[in-house]
Amino acid sequence: MDNLDLIKQISITSPGKIVLLVIDGLGGLTHPKTAKTELETASTPNLDRLAAGSTCGLIDPVGPGITPGSTPGHLALFGYDPVKYNIGRGVVAALGIDFDLKPDDIAARGNFCTVDSSGLITDRRAGRIPTEKCTELCRLLDEIKIEGIKLFVRPVREHRFAVVFRGEGLSPEISDSDPQQTGVAPKAIKAQQSTARRTADIANEFIAQTRTILARHHPANMVILRGFSRKPSLPTMGEVYKLKPAAIAAYPMYRGLAKLVGMQLLKTGPAIADEFDTLKQNYAGYDFFFLHIKETDSAGEDGDFDRKVNVIEEIDKALPALTGLKPDVIVVTADHSTPALLKSHSWHPVPILLYSQWCRPDRVGEFTEQACILGGLGRFPATQVMPLAMANALKLAKFGA
Amino acid sequence: MDNLDLIKQISITSPGKIVLLVIDGLGGLTHPKTAKTELETASTPNLDRLAAGSTCGLIDPVGPGITPGSTPGHLALFGYDPVKYNIGRGVVAALGIDFDLKPDDIAARGNFCTVDSSGLITDRRAGRIPTEKCTELCRLLDEIKIEGIKLFVRPVREHRFAVVFRGEGLSPEISDSDPQQTGVAPKAIKAQQSTARRTADIANEFIAQTRTILARHHPANMVILRGFSRKPSLPTMGEVYKLKPAAIAAYPMYRGLAKLVGMQLLKTGPAIADEFDTLKQNYAGYDFFFLHIKETDSAGEDGDFDRKVNVIEEIDKALPALTGLKPDVIVVTADHSTPALLKSHSWHPVPILLYSQWCRPDRVGEFTEQACILGGLGRFPATQVMPLAMANALKLAKFGA
Repeated sequence: MDNLDLIKQISITSPGKIVLLVIDGLGGLTHPKTAKTELETASTPNLDRLAAGSTCGLIDPVGPGITPGSTPGHLALFGYDPVKYNIGRGVVAALGIDFDLKPDDIAARGNFCTVDSSGLITDRRAGRIPTEKCTELCRLLDEIKIEGIKLFVRPVREHRFAVVFRGEGLSPEISDSDPQQTGVAPKAIKAQQSTARRTADIANEFIAQTRTILARHHPANMVILRGFSRKPSLPTMGEVYKLKPAAIAAYPMYRGLAKLVGMQLLKTGPAIADEFDTLKQNYAGYDFFFLHIKETDSAGEDGDFDRKVNVIEEIDKALPALTGLKPDVIVVTADHSTPALLKSHSWHPVPILLYSQWCRPDRVGEFTEQACILGGLGRFPATQVMPLAMANALKLAKFGA
Repeated sequence: MDNLDLIKQISITSPGKIVLLVIDGLGGLTHPKTAKTELETASTPNLDRLAAGSTCGLIDPVGPGITPGSTPGHLALFGYDPVKYNIGRGVVAALGIDFDLKPDDIAARGNFCTVDSSGLITDRRAGRIPTEKCTELCRLLDEIKIEGIKLFVRPVREHRFAVVFRGEGLSPEISDSDPQQTGVAPKAIKAQQSTARRTADIANEFIAQTRTILARHHPANMVILRGFSRKPSLPTMGEVYKLKPAAIAAYPMYRGLAKLVGMQLLKTGPAIADEFDTLKQNYAGYDFFFLHIKETDSAGEDGDFDRKVNVIEEIDKALPALTGLKPDVIVVTADHSTPALLKSHSWHPVPILLYSQWCRPDRVGEFTEQACILGGLGRFPATQVMPLAMANALKLAKFGA
């Protein structure tokens, strides 16, 4: 039995409120000079006070050693097995730009690229054209007509775009045109099942027309597509947990993920303080809040240790706006680690604190990676965060007699 | 999805090198006089220094409370689910003597035993005849001819031998002749599926001929067979991890296991220092090394606490030969515990240290069972050691977008 099936059987509605604060990429690695991580370096009196009254631990988003993308990292936090619900790259791209994907739409992730006079790829990113140029070219491609389907070409950032095919009888079972290397031509798209032949033809027709349109737009004179996929049908958080969930996230990608699991998206300003204010304004209307802060991850990806420290301190200053609402359960954690030293997501386990009136506090007195090692929650899979939060909000009935 | 499938999808080749040092049966129990385990008693300055810069923890080879044989203990360390890949006893016996099993061979583990004049077993081990006697009797049995098949009878040690049936259309689905008790006759071997009837006939024919040949060789006047099995087809470590793996193991059993998962076997001398020297000599040619040391387990099985302590100290002295090569990742652990107090393998979790430039060090400053309890890896299944080692060698790509 899937864990979600079990939880669905025993979840109950109760007045308790849960706030899940996701500090994206929070986990880090120690600075060579100080032997302290970003979180250990930051001055975080509010988080430390909260940790002292909480039970703490470390989570693995997908599994030990596995570096998660944002999608599996978040799905695991929401309680969904991220390997079972592996979301295609095309869908992730569409979600990331807030595109309203319909259940039968086929989405692909596209790159503008450069090809030489023989049609061989010389740059898979077309010199990273500016987003404005990408937007302009997407407008041209969006005009392409293919019989029987509706086409959407939308810019993402720099050379990246999303393309969505809408129509009857389409299939995501088609291969990439992106050969993932230079010096070769883009590949013809092939059906991986006989039922996908028409979709392959349509995708190849789109590429053929694109080639003509882009011929004079060097360096962005061609496209490569990958990750054809359809929005998966996930049970909503309302169905599984009987919650009325809301998402506060400034970045489109995370709004898209929240929508995928049935959360209501709340309008919010881009600053950290804005997001906490949005929580306060909407606190009465929901019993579960996913509050996502992106800047820690961005600083980590940029390799900017100090900026990541500063963002953590800014979050700590904003925290009383959250704790002042006195939620029944507060979870503070992340979707994955993004150590500034690695300049990328990583596999390192992520610190977590869970506060509730009914948690059994441990001896952890500060919110750091080191302290969380000794926490009462131990080290555990991120998919178990939601059941724990639900239990602490008295939203899970007894299992078995 | 099997964990190996996931790892196979995301594993990449990189220049990083991994050394997995398996100190067989390392975990122990505390001596009643000192309250220290074998590892805690040993003076291990090199292991302690390595642990201080590593992340540490405890692994369960199969699961809490489960005492593993050598085969599941090692398969788990190599990342293979030891319950899913449960290797038959006959195959283990053949691997243990370096027999070159073909994919369709059926192997069984045999005992020379003693039967009385009515054919009832009086000693399942024939008084533990010396290995020389066993070898002599196996040579006699190896001459048995059965139409349509080729037969191999090979001594293991004392009363133990391996028998291999090679031919067309054989099946491992046949029952044991070993009744696992005395006072009864050996059982007739039965087909467990209709397709196995011919194999059962062949095995019974082998036993009938054996009975005649051994009639005058009291106390070894009969044999009992068990664990008919075929070599499983495991994905190789090359396929799963894209590694070029090599094994350094003086004992045949461990060479056999390494071969089963596709490792290259390196010629090595029997002493601990020999094995470390073999590592040095072959360091350039591979990116993964399994270095196996047997003597800790043998001392534990013999109940010789002090000898086990001495072996651990000898390994510690040899360790600089390994660390001096500066592998990207060093894992030191074991396939199971073998406490001298129990004189056998045991279920106790096994200390592990994982060193890499990218590990997140914890506060563990020595390599002992007690210290590892508080390590940053926590307590986790041994099947996750390889994903962690791969991640730390930067050999795993991000999962999902």
